[in-house]
Amino acid sequence: MKKPKIWNNKHLLGLKKLSADELTCIFDTAENYVKYAGGTGQKTDDLKGKLVVNLFFEDSTRTRSSFAIAASRLGADVIELTAKASSLSKGETLRDTARNLEAMGIDMVVIRHSAGGAPYLLSQNIEASILNAGDGYHEHPTQALLDIFTIRQLRGSLEGLKVAIVGDIAHSRVARSNIWALNTLGAKVFVVGPPTLMPSAVNKLPVTVCHDFDSIISEMDVFNMLRVQSERIKSQVFPSTREYSRIFGLTNNRMKRAKKDVIVMHPGPINRGVEIDSDVADGPNSTILKQVTNGVAIRMAVMALCDSVK
Amino acid sequence: MKKPKIWNNKHLLGLKKLSADELTCIFDTAENYVKYAGGTGQKTDDLKGKLVVNLFFEDSTRTRSSFAIAASRLGADVIELTAKASSLSKGETLRDTARNLEAMGIDMVVIRHSAGGAPYLLSQNIEASILNAGDGYHEHPTQALLDIFTIRQLRGSLEGLKVAIVGDIAHSRVARSNIWALNTLGAKVFVVGPPTLMPSAVNKLPVTVCHDFDSIISEMDVFNMLRVQSERIKSQVFPSTREYSRIFGLTNNRMKRAKKDVIVMHPGPINRGVEIDSDVADGPNSTILKQVTNGVAIRMAVMALCDSVK
Amino acid sequence: MKKPKIWNNKHLLGLKKLSADELTCIFDTAENYVKYAGGTGQKTDDLKGKLVVNLFFEDSTRTRSSFAIAASRLGADVIELTAKASSLSKGETLRDTARNLEAMGIDMVVIRHSAGGAPYLLSQNIEASILNAGDGYHEHPTQALLDIFTIRQLRGSLEGLKVAIVGDIAHSRVARSNIWALNTLGAKVFVVGPPTLMPSAVNKLPVTVCHDFDSIISEMDVFNMLRVQSERIKSQVFPSTREYSRIFGLTNNRMKRAKKDVIVMHPGPINRGVEIDSDVADGPNSTILKQVTNGVAIRMAVMALCDSVK
Repeated sequence: MKKPKIWNNKHLLGLKKLSADELTCIFDTAENYVKYAGGTGQKTDDLKGKLVVNLFFEDSTRTRSSFAIAASRLGADVIELTAKASSLSKGETLRDTARNLEAMGIDMVVIRHSAGGAPYLLSQNIEASILNAGDGYHEHPTQALLDIFTIRQLRGSLEGLKVAIVGDIAHSRVARSNIWALNTLGAKVFVVGPPTLMPSAVNKLPVTVCHDFDSIISEMDVFNMLRVQSERIKSQVFPSTREYSRIFGLTNNRMKRAKKDVIVMHPGPINRGVEIDSDVADGPNSTILKQVTNGVAIRMAVMALCDSVK
Repeated sequence: MKKPKIWNNKHLLGLKKLSADELTCIFDTAENYVKYAGGTGQKTDDLKGKLVVNLFFEDSTRTRSSFAIAASRLGADVIELTAKASSLSKGETLRDTARNLEAMGIDMVVIRHSAGGAPYLLSQNIEASILNAGDGYHEHPTQALLDIFTIRQLRGSLEGLKVAIVGDIAHSRVARSNIWALNTLGAKVFVVGPPTLMPSAVNKLPVTVCHDFDSIISEMDVFNMLRVQSERIKSQVFPSTREYSRIFGLTNNRMKRAKKDVIVMHPGPINRGVEIDSDVADGPNSTILKQVTNGVAIRMAVMALCDSVK
Repeated sequence: MKKPKIWNNKHLLGLKKLSADELTCIFDTAENYVKYAGGTGQKTDDLKGKLVVNLFFEDSTRTRSSFAIAASRLGADVIELTAKASSLSKGETLRDTARNLEAMGIDMVVIRHSAGGAPYLLSQNIEASILNAGDGYHEHPTQALLDIFTIRQLRGSLEGLKVAIVGDIAHSRVARSNIWALNTLGAKVFVVGPPTLMPSAVNKLPVTVCHDFDSIISEMDVFNMLRVQSERIKSQVFPSTREYSRIFGLTNNRMKRAKKDVIVMHPGPINRGVEIDSDVADGPNSTILKQVTNGVAIRMAVMALCDSVK
C-alpha cells in the first residue's frame, strides 16, 4: 500500500497520541477492507510475502484469530508463537526474543503481554513493526478502533456523541484505548461502575465518572459493556454476579428507558445474564457481531498502514 | 467446484441420513482428488481464498492434520483453534464462539467435540459450513467415508459385502457412522465384541450382533478393527489387554482362517498386539495406510461439495 | 531445484558423514537464499505445493520458527505438530506416526526428539525426507551448518582456523555437529569446559580438550559459547552461575586478550552474564543475530537440496 501523507507510524502501540486525522486515516483505510472481512473468499496482495508473528503471552481466541485472518487476507504469512512454547520460558529476555525473530526476517510482530509497556519496549529495540494486541491494563488499540469504527459506520461522526463505558474500568485496557480516541474525535465519555472498579487516578482521565447507571441511561448514544472478569467477583470487589447484573447490567428493563437507536457494544466474550442480558446482546441495537467483522477490517488497515511507512 | 445436482448439503453432520446417491457423489468426487492426496506437490484452487477453522475440543493428530492438509491442497487458508486456547475457557457458549468466528469471515468450521450433537447445534446457528470431525459417541462421518471409499476402490461396490466391525462398539462414533452408510450401500454389517462393549440399544441398529469372533471369521469380506481405549480396559470392562487380544484381536492365527482377500482396516492409532497383531497390520491384506491417504481425498471432497452449495 | 551433481542425500540426519564437497554445496546453495532470509518480502517457488511437517517433541522457538519460515519462503505449506497433541500420547509408535503422516502426502519431516537416533529411525521407515532439528545429545546439523556458514561468510574459508567451543560439551548436540563439520573443513577445534561437562569418550573426538579457557584465549579465531542449562547448574555439576561465568564466561576482560577480529558466536537463547557478558553479546565481534538470519538461509538450502534428490 502507498503510504498516506498523514500516516507516519511504523508501530501501533496505543491510541493516546494519535490525532483525529490519523484515526480517520485508519477508518478510511478499513472501509476499503470491509469487503475482504466478510468471508467472500477475496484476498488482497497488499502484504504479499511479508511475515507476521503472532506473539501472544496471554490466551486469546478472537484477537489472535482476527489478526491471523487479517494477515492472511492481506497475503502475508503468519507464524504463531505462544509464551509457553517460546524461549522466554528458558529465561531469554523479551528484547532478545524479538531481535531473534527480526533476524529471521519478520516484518511485523503482533504482541499481547500482561505487562503494560511491553510493546513499547519492543518498538525501541527492533526495526519490525510492532502492533499492540493488548498490554496489561494499558491499551488495546485495535479493539477500541473497531469499536469506534463501528459507531462511525452507523452515525457518520463521533462528534458530540455520548458514550458510556460500563464495568470494570480499573482493569480494562479496552476502556483506556476507547477513552483516548473517543475524546480525540469529540465524543463525550462516561465511565460507569462501582468505585471499587474505577482506576485510582480516574479524575485525571477525560471522562465523566458515574456510579449510578440508571441516572444517565436515557441520554446515552452508545453503551460499551465491558466483560466482568469472574476473578474480580470472586475477589470480593463485588458481592455476586447477580448483584452486579442488577446494578450495572444492560438488562431488558434498562433498554426500555434507553434511546430507541442506542448502540449496544461489547468487546466479547460475553457473560450472558451478567453484564448484558441475552435478549439485548442478540437484539436489534446490538453491534456485537458487526464489531467482530470490523475487527478484521481494522486490523488489515493497521497492518497495511504500518507496513507502508517502511 | 460446481454443485453436483444430487448434492444439496451445506454441512456434513453424519451419514445416517445420506442416500446411496449422495454417498456415491462423495466417492466420485474423492476419486478426482486422490491424485492430490499422495504428496505429488500438486494443489487445486477449488477453495482458493476460503477460510477454514479447525476447532478441536479433543486432541487429535491424524484427523486434524488430515483436514488441514485437505484444506491446504484445495488452496484454502486454515486457522487452528484448540479448546484450551479458545474463549470457551472463559465461559463463552459454543454458539457465541461459532458466531464470532463466522463474523470474522470463516467459510467452514471443522469441529470435534466430546458432546454428541455439538456440530448439529452449530449448524443451526451459523451460515458457515459445519463438518463433523467426531462428536461424542454419535458420528465421525469422514472416517467412515474413507473406510468405505477404500473398500469401494478395491471391490467396486459395497453391495452384499460382509463387514465385521470389531471392538468397543458402545463408545465408537466410527462404528456408528460406518453402520449407517454401509447399510445404505447394501453391505451386511456384523458388530463383534463382548456384551459389555455393545450399546444398550444395539438391537435397534441394522446389524448382526456377534460375541464370538471365531464363529464368523471365515465368511467376512472386511474386518474393521476398532482401537481399544486403554481407559476401558482399566475400568474393568475387560480383564486385560492380553485377554482382549486372545478373544477379539485380529491375530496371525485368525487370519489363517479368513478369506484370502479379506480387507483389514483400522482407523488408527493402532495398539499393536492388542486389537491387531503387528504382522497383520503391516501385512498384504491391510489397507491401514491407504485409508490415511484416502482420508485426505475424502475430506477434500466433502469440503468442496459442502462449499459448492452456497 | 535441480539436483547438484555432488548432492545425493534425501535426508539430513547429521554432519559426521558429510564430505567437504557436500558441506560446500550446502553453503553455496544457502548463499543464494540469504536474500530471502532477511525480511524483504521476497519468496521463491522452489518447494511450491510441497508439504512440510514440523514434528517437535521438545519445545523450541527459534529452530521451529526458523524451519517454518524457511519452508514458507520456499513456497511450501507447513503443518505444525507437537508431541503433546500427537497420537504418540495415545501410545502410537514413532514409526507409525511417521508412516501415517507420509500416507497423508507429506514430503518432508523436520523432527526434534529427545532420543538420539530418532531421525535415523524415521528415515529407515518412510520415503519422505527427514531433517534432524536436534536429537538427544547426538547432532543438531542445521545449527552447526549456520554457525560454520557464518564463519565462512566472514573468512572465506575454514582451513586452519582455531575454533573454541566453550561450555557443556557433554550434553551438547550443537557441539558434536560443529566438531564433525569443522574438522572435515580443516578447522582446528578446541573444546573448553570443566571435566564434569566433557563427554566420557572425549579423547576419541577430533578435538583438543582444554580446561583452562584463559590459556588459549589469545590464539582463537572463533568462540562458540554454548548455553549453560540451568538444570546442570542445579544438579551440582557446577557450583553456581557466578562461578561458571568467572571461569568459563566470555567476559569483557577476556575479550581484551582475544584477537581483535575474533568471531563471537552463540546458538541462543543467551544467558546474559553467565556464559557471555551482555556487552560482548551485543558487541562488534558478535555474530549472534547474523547466525539467526543465516539459519533461515541454511534451512532453505537443506530443504531444497534434500527435496531435489527425489
